[in-house]
Amino acid sequence: MARINEHYRKLAAGYLFPEIGRRVKAFSDANPSARVIRLGIGDVTEPLAPAIIEAMTEAVAEMGNRSTFKGYGPEQGYGFLVDAIREHDYASRGVAIAADEVFVSDGSKCDSANIQEIFDMGARIAVTDPVYPVYVDSNVMAGRTGANDGKGRYEGLVYLDANEGNGFVPAPPKDRVDLVYLCSPNNPTGAVATREQLTEWVNWANQNGAVIVFDAAYEAFIRDPKLPRSIYEIPGAKTCALEMRSFSKRAGFTGVRCAFTVVPKELQGTTASGEKVPFNALWSRRHTTKFNGASYIVQKGAAAAYNVKGLAETQAQVAFYMENAQLLRDGLSRAGFRVFGGEHAPYIWMKTPNGVASWDFFNTLLEKANVVGTPGSGFGAGGEGYFRLSAFNSRENVQEALDRIHKAFA
Amino acid sequence: MARINEHYRKLAAGYLFPEIGRRVKAFSDANPSARVIRLGIGDVTEPLAPAIIEAMTEAVAEMGNRSTFKGYGPEQGYGFLVDAIREHDYASRGVAIAADEVFVSDGSKCDSANIQEIFDMGARIAVTDPVYPVYVDSNVMAGRTGANDGKGRYEGLVYLDANEGNGFVPAPPKDRVDLVYLCSPNNPTGAVATREQLTEWVNWANQNGAVIVFDAAYEAFIRDPKLPRSIYEIPGAKTCALEMRSFSKRAGFTGVRCAFTVVPKELQGTTASGEKVPFNALWSRRHTTKFNGASYIVQKGAAAAYNVKGLAETQAQVAFYMENAQLLRDGLSRAGFRVFGGEHAPYIWMKTPNGVASWDFFNTLLEKANVVGTPGSGFGAGGEGYFRLSAFNSRENVQEALDRIHKAFA
Repeated sequence: MARINEHYRKLAAGYLFPEIGRRVKAFSDANPSARVIRLGIGDVTEPLAPAIIEAMTEAVAEMGNRSTFKGYGPEQGYGFLVDAIREHDYASRGVAIAADEVFVSDGSKCDSANIQEIFDMGARIAVTDPVYPVYVDSNVMAGRTGANDGKGRYEGLVYLDANEGNGFVPAPPKDRVDLVYLCSPNNPTGAVATREQLTEWVNWANQNGAVIVFDAAYEAFIRDPKLPRSIYEIPGAKTCALEMRSFSKRAGFTGVRCAFTVVPKELQGTTASGEKVPFNALWSRRHTTKFNGASYIVQKGAAAAYNVKGLAETQAQVAFYMENAQLLRDGLSRAGFRVFGGEHAPYIWMKTPNGVASWDFFNTLLEKANVVGTPGSGFGAGGEGYFRLSAFNSRENVQEALDRIHKAFA
Repeated sequence: MARINEHYRKLAAGYLFPEIGRRVKAFSDANPSARVIRLGIGDVTEPLAPAIIEAMTEAVAEMGNRSTFKGYGPEQGYGFLVDAIREHDYASRGVAIAADEVFVSDGSKCDSANIQEIFDMGARIAVTDPVYPVYVDSNVMAGRTGANDGKGRYEGLVYLDANEGNGFVPAPPKDRVDLVYLCSPNNPTGAVATREQLTEWVNWANQNGAVIVFDAAYEAFIRDPKLPRSIYEIPGAKTCALEMRSFSKRAGFTGVRCAFTVVPKELQGTTASGEKVPFNALWSRRHTTKFNGASYIVQKGAAAAYNVKGLAETQAQVAFYMENAQLLRDGLSRAGFRVFGGEHAPYIWMKTPNGVASWDFFNTLLEKANVVGTPGSGFGAGGEGYFRLSAFNSRENVQEALDRIHKAFA
């Protein structure tokens, strides 16, 4: 009988969000009159911007017409989208990115899961703790780790504590590391790396020959213009970092599916014999061999998020969510909680009261306030004693959730 | 400096279709007045069916409305599409497939590249020769092969010759194999496996504990109702086969992106210690961890290919392409070529005249008839001396191509 990939067996059995779903369903079944407010999963709630709807409606019509129909497109993405990305996301911040350094995909979850494939199996991987689970799980599945210790850590990975002491932005490690995943603005903590902190990371990576996977999926939520939105705003980053971005949160594309990864041609790795090889060529080979391009209709929609109307509309949505985040920060503080994040990110990271365990607080919040959040421990051992609330919801629901939390805890 | 995945270096440098593109461009630049007809890449040319356009237009409008907006959907696909697949593709052929055995994705290229991940690194892999390159390349990149022999074969893979002698449908191997990729109707040869042939494969796989990846991307092109469209029409297939299908060719979705894989719960693999594990659970874990669902708009379009109107319209498109295939078969035969395929598949597989090399014939056909096809050797050593023409084009272009070939070769 064919043997399975046994590395999958190391994965913690219950993935976070299905377990939340199970508990919410059990509660709702037992309390059918309770109106549960979900601030758990980071999923957008505002409809797509009118400019995007217009562009996608037009793209669908093109697909129904012989003279404008599109079959296979370039796997790396259409020029109209790649150029909009280069101009609006990079040139506008003083960063020159070439067209063949941008790889459009159907989502950052895929990109961040797949990127490890172009690195050696023996690569030493570092992640922050807490962390977006995909970085870890994709390396576990590939066989780069040992066993799970039962508390959410895997043998062989380097964990960098993100805690109150370092403002949830860890410093570079002392140990040798080949690949490090950094997410800023951070999921789940909402922390954002400053220019000084990113400079320290870039210098460390260049000095140590490490590669930074910089996940900027939430860059649109940065409100302070002095904070870097791209790691390429830091001198030297092109020789040590690749960057991922997504339309999921900035343009409401969680159900539409579009993202991209930038791999500068200066970014090199090495063979066992010391020959230098650009990661751009490796990622291009992976992308063209194992992926067939994002949907034309979707790419037209993504490009519309950059036109004058689309930009204004999507920025208004981001501002709306950030008002929710501000309300959550203020309201939770008034209710006596210690809160972090939510200033340049759509996530509020809060300490559980009296240090209770994350899942216990999940249950209490669900029972006493009928509000769903995400237990911090679901993002790793370093998240224990914390809790994540998302700003993605209607104003009414956010206010109602705060009212209930006040009644239950204040 | 971080080490790269050196298995990528084993890959043949030039991927097939970019090389074709390069040669066509060079020819067109040198002969600007030549009107080149492309029968090379298997890309559809008919616009999307009106029923699909209607459904996608409606889905786009839903995404612009707060009450009908959709964020993250189930990674495995929406119930409306999964149920349409189960009913129209399987129940209608007497095959019961459960909802949690269907995994909707953004394309069969991705699925067929990713499926190897759930198998052990030591799995022994068999492919036909010629073969769709993704099956091979994805295993090379994962490290399951040795070096490339320079003629298109990799050390460690088991190659099953598909040739005139066996009607381009090889028999099961004598050697031990854990995983075999079968594509029927076949890309590139156009051959289709009969019920008897598939029964032999299923019995062999069950007796030897092997798993068949059955790629049925072209099943819609089967015209003889007695030929199996799904491997699950063969008794015993659920314990030895998973099946992939695509909307790319049956519904013109090459630029829209939707496909699915069926993994029956009866299909098991084993751990080193002999414990049996369902592949369904492994694929589900991969799909939910490394993929975030196909676009809602796209899934609505795919589902419309199954409604009464959409089915009639897409079947008419398939029939149109098959008329092209018939014209190509007849016309090429009259011009003195030996042709195969094209009866239950949109591909004509022809012998090059006087056994000239595939790439030489590519050049001759381009120069003498300004027609582009695909050299058989691009699909593996076993394709040398053959040539693939695709039936995906307008009637006018197909007829014009045949006229030119007659003038040049007859």
